[in-house]
Amino acid sequence: MLKFIDGGVCAAQGFKASGIHVGVKTNNLTKKDLALIVSDGEANAAAVYTKNIVKAAPLIISKAHLSDGKARAIIANSGNANACAPFGEAYAERSCRAAAEALGISQKDILVASTGVIGQTLPVEVIEKGVPALVSALSANGSGDAAAAIMTTDTVMKECAVETQIGGKTVKIGGIAKGSGMIHPNMGTMLCFITTDCAISAKMIQKALVETANVSFNRISVDGDTSTNDMYCLLANGFAGNSIIAAAGGEYDAFLEALKALSVYLAKIMASDGEGATHLITCTVKGAADEKAAETLSKSVISSTLTKAAVFGADANWGRVLCAMGYSGVEFDPEQVSVAFSSEAGSIDVCKNGRGLSFDEALAKKVLTVHDITLDITAGTGMGECTCWGCDITYDYIKINGDYRT
Amino acid sequence: MLKFIDGGVCAAQGFKASGIHVGVKTNNLTKKDLALIVSDGEANAAAVYTKNIVKAAPLIISKAHLSDGKARAIIANSGNANACAPFGEAYAERSCRAAAEALGISQKDILVASTGVIGQTLPVEVIEKGVPALVSALSANGSGDAAAAIMTTDTVMKECAVETQIGGKTVKIGGIAKGSGMIHPNMGTMLCFITTDCAISAKMIQKALVETANVSFNRISVDGDTSTNDMYCLLANGFAGNSIIAAAGGEYDAFLEALKALSVYLAKIMASDGEGATHLITCTVKGAADEKAAETLSKSVISSTLTKAAVFGADANWGRVLCAMGYSGVEFDPEQVSVAFSSEAGSIDVCKNGRGLSFDEALAKKVLTVHDITLDITAGTGMGECTCWGCDITYDYIKINGDYRT
Repeated sequence: MLKFIDGGVCAAQGFKASGIHVGVKTNNLTKKDLALIVSDGEANAAAVYTKNIVKAAPLIISKAHLSDGKARAIIANSGNANACAPFGEAYAERSCRAAAEALGISQKDILVASTGVIGQTLPVEVIEKGVPALVSALSANGSGDAAAAIMTTDTVMKECAVETQIGGKTVKIGGIAKGSGMIHPNMGTMLCFITTDCAISAKMIQKALVETANVSFNRISVDGDTSTNDMYCLLANGFAGNSIIAAAGGEYDAFLEALKALSVYLAKIMASDGEGATHLITCTVKGAADEKAAETLSKSVISSTLTKAAVFGADANWGRVLCAMGYSGVEFDPEQVSVAFSSEAGSIDVCKNGRGLSFDEALAKKVLTVHDITLDITAGTGMGECTCWGCDITYDYIKINGDYRT
Repeated sequence: MLKFIDGGVCAAQGFKASGIHVGVKTNNLTKKDLALIVSDGEANAAAVYTKNIVKAAPLIISKAHLSDGKARAIIANSGNANACAPFGEAYAERSCRAAAEALGISQKDILVASTGVIGQTLPVEVIEKGVPALVSALSANGSGDAAAAIMTTDTVMKECAVETQIGGKTVKIGGIAKGSGMIHPNMGTMLCFITTDCAISAKMIQKALVETANVSFNRISVDGDTSTNDMYCLLANGFAGNSIIAAAGGEYDAFLEALKALSVYLAKIMASDGEGATHLITCTVKGAADEKAAETLSKSVISSTLTKAAVFGADANWGRVLCAMGYSGVEFDPEQVSVAFSSEAGSIDVCKNGRGLSFDEALAKKVLTVHDITLDITAGTGMGECTCWGCDITYDYIKINGDYRT
């Protein structure tokens, strides 16, 4: 019943979006840098944020504006993180006010987000000046423009929508996201904005965001750096006409399943589009003591700089996989570990019971040269299983981050 | 009274060393790959090892041989880690037996260590065949040869010795070390072999190793990967003639001070010689709640891939410093944080009270282009202070690790 559809954040009934260039990104005049997502009616809303102690100003403001569990719109800029910057909170509020005035709604119903360089003053006048044009550009086909306007070093637009049946009604959920570097989400995630026409209470949205973040964005890593600006939020305007989901149960589960499919899809593109990445690494750990242990082991492997460098070099250096498992903090018996590498080019067993197997190096090279590669790890005889996603580390990652500010 | 001297592991009375090429490294016939350090008489000894759950076979054997607190010699090969490899422990014992027979001492008095590729069978016959020549090469000037023979991707030989006065006697302590990648020590460290003519009990050696590892090797990081082979051991033959140190007190403190100076020196060269590194980063955090909090904050900064990439690009991207502090797990008030970058080219304040300062970008570039750079961070008003050492991440790191096995 669950199916992927087009339309991104505009797929659900009653949502419009836009994205334009206003000048926050001064180094490229053609790149969009300001996005807006608006619900035609009141929407319940909630968000989860970064656990980094250093929090960007827009997160503080969005959290305050969400205290009533309602929101109508999200304004987001790229090119400047508005984190550790002078007048951070005041300028985040000014972005909200500009959007509120142009839309004719309450400033408290606007959420705000920023992404880009940390520590530089937000050029808020540029945003204020651009807002009328941004509002004029709002359209039911605007999801792609909004997705483009929140990109920084991203090379791929991150947009997705799903449709499911809840309480006899067709419900749509759509999202856009950005994230390429400083990606190692913890509870919150990169910027990810979700819209739905499902009727669901703010409390249940919050619960669903936490549950889905934990199995999607919190299971990817690009570089181990947890951002100051991570934010994952959802607006639900109820236009689908289902009776409101206000408690756990079958309808909540159907919503959760759809939101999870959407979020995992977006998280995987985020890992795949990691700064400079040439490989998406899917790492599945089975046989751990429990799911948490499997997750810690898998995350340790996809976060290991040495494993990532080996994948870049298409080198089946499985010793680094065992090494990363060994320092993860999870107890396991190295003598029970098996490792296989696979991709559409084939599959190759490289380690069994903690000892190296002799394998065909030429085939291994071929398997690892494909973009999407899978590491299948058996950690023991337990029931715990988990999949996490990462990417390789490349010359381009170093190039991109050696001089990001200019 | 404490002074640095020449001689490495042969500086202390009654120690000889050698290092030759026997063929473990098959890709370069001129590179030394087998090292031996021998005490002319019985020596008390102790070691600390990696906390990685996946432990290389030589560590298991060395630990067993050290159960009596005595050792006479250390045999170590580079080119093969003998970790997760078939017949690991049996082959580590065979290396010990070959050395014991050639030296005419007990096999139980030999410690063994390996470093190199994980998961490949140790070519133990090559080692056995090479041992007689290795023993013939033993010399009181052999420390440099031994240091060279444990190098893998190291570009700089790591050797140091100090002299101090203990109980009216001149005591010497010398060490050699290796370590360039997979460096993020936890309790143990990379290979580091220390010799001394000081008379000190195995129990006090153990205590001194733990105390000094915690403030030297455990405060450096190259890539966040804790090796399977880390080992830091010390042989004390008592030839200096001081009365044996068997308890805490002034003489133990003098020994500890000397061992700490030696170990910090070796740890700093290790960080500076990180794979592909072009900068040594010294990061001092002051004003934290306590020393442990300062250490966690400093380690998080030197381990941040994004901060390392910024240093490589000589980009004063202090936002990444705050970001890394923020996800370290330590509580602090971002509004109290100040950051300055300095080097022999000058000093520049970039952040005060959690907000960016406008600074001279050209000067910042100049400051950060020097090899040794310092990050001075004030985290608050506490008394906790700690310095950790790291290095930048570069194209060469990716190149070295993209295809390490061949």
